[in-house]
Amino acid sequence: MTTILLRKGALTRQAILEHAARMASRVGLEGLTPDEMRRHAAAYRDRHGIPACDPLVEGVGPILAEIRRRFVDTVVKPALAAPRGEKRVRALFERWIEWPRSSGLAGCMFVALATELDDQPGPVRERLVQSQKDWLDVIANCVRTAVVEGDFRKEVDPEQFAHELYGIMLANHHAVRLLRDRKGVERTRRGFERLLEDARARPKARS
Amino acid sequence: MTTILLRKGALTRQAILEHAARMASRVGLEGLTPDEMRRHAAAYRDRHGIPACDPLVEGVGPILAEIRRRFVDTVVKPALAAPRGEKRVRALFERWIEWPRSSGLAGCMFVALATELDDQPGPVRERLVQSQKDWLDVIANCVRTAVVEGDFRKEVDPEQFAHELYGIMLANHHAVRLLRDRKGVERTRRGFERLLEDARARPKARS
Repeated sequence: MTTILLRKGALTRQAILEHAARMASRVGLEGLTPDEMRRHAAAYRDRHGIPACDPLVEGVGPILAEIRRRFVDTVVKPALAAPRGEKRVRALFERWIEWPRSSGLAGCMFVALATELDDQPGPVRERLVQSQKDWLDVIANCVRTAVVEGDFRKEVDPEQFAHELYGIMLANHHAVRLLRDRKGVERTRRGFERLLEDARARPKARS
Repeated sequence: MTTILLRKGALTRQAILEHAARMASRVGLEGLTPDEMRRHAAAYRDRHGIPACDPLVEGVGPILAEIRRRFVDTVVKPALAAPRGEKRVRALFERWIEWPRSSGLAGCMFVALATELDDQPGPVRERLVQSQKDWLDVIANCVRTAVVEGDFRKEVDPEQFAHELYGIMLANHHAVRLLRDRKGVERTRRGFERLLEDARARPKARS
């Protein structure tokens, strides 16, 4: 009896996952928000008489994998092709700030998922955390290279830099998406320049 | 016919709003996330045979008002009691970083709502945006006072400072809540000190 129930649960899960993956490849994720995600999954369940489960957690796994792939292709890889040092750090920033547009998604799915999942333990949350940590590592490594190249001071803490840059981008998201602040991007750029300025090996000090 | 339908819609809305307000006062908002909010509202609708509408938007109005009241009482008012200048800016920061704990809520409801509502036009979104802008204004005004008091340089842009401080707190939320980064708060403090350091009237320059 338990086995049958478990198998039924597994089949249900499989069906929803496949639906989510199909949907992701069909609509190409354009304009897909977690809310729409949930609505699609709920409608699918209703149509097939599948009992309620958490459609976000069930359906979001394949979507997350797809977004991650896109982020690597449109942000990480092209930025890493820039020359080592400050130029590469700047390339990361420029690609990242373009991401909500270049991703073809409605807003930043990572931010949406981070807020949805931050108190929901489980494999999807773990995957999201891993992808965020990987990204922070990429930034920190580029900063480390900039120190080695002599562009940044050797006292610069690469993880601290990555953490602060993350905050700058979250503030950008908040100002642009929620507050519709027309000066949002400009403020973000000024914050980034201040971060760079503090990190830079200072020729001014020598004058 | 239209009138009856409208009245029925208004009654439904009223019932859900009252339920949300009751629930908010009863459970005191402890541990209430937007997801639980949604689940409560959905269960209430099912019990009373009320047709589906958007429970988040319907139910969140009174909750938002209650959170805002708490934020003003536990963060804004006590911080504004601190001496004018850098001390007051620091008091804002200290009260703010304690807010997720002092609020008695699970995580920061403002962040959760900001992400949920950033692409959903409507009165609740407008109220949320207004409360965020009010808070940014409070910060900017304290920074302006610090300039007047001579604690900060006169070139400091108060709105820019507020924007960057907001990013520092969003990064704190991200690091602590999602990444469970044990160094998160320490990094946040270092980011804040760097922001202060840059804003400060520099006695070093005179040496």
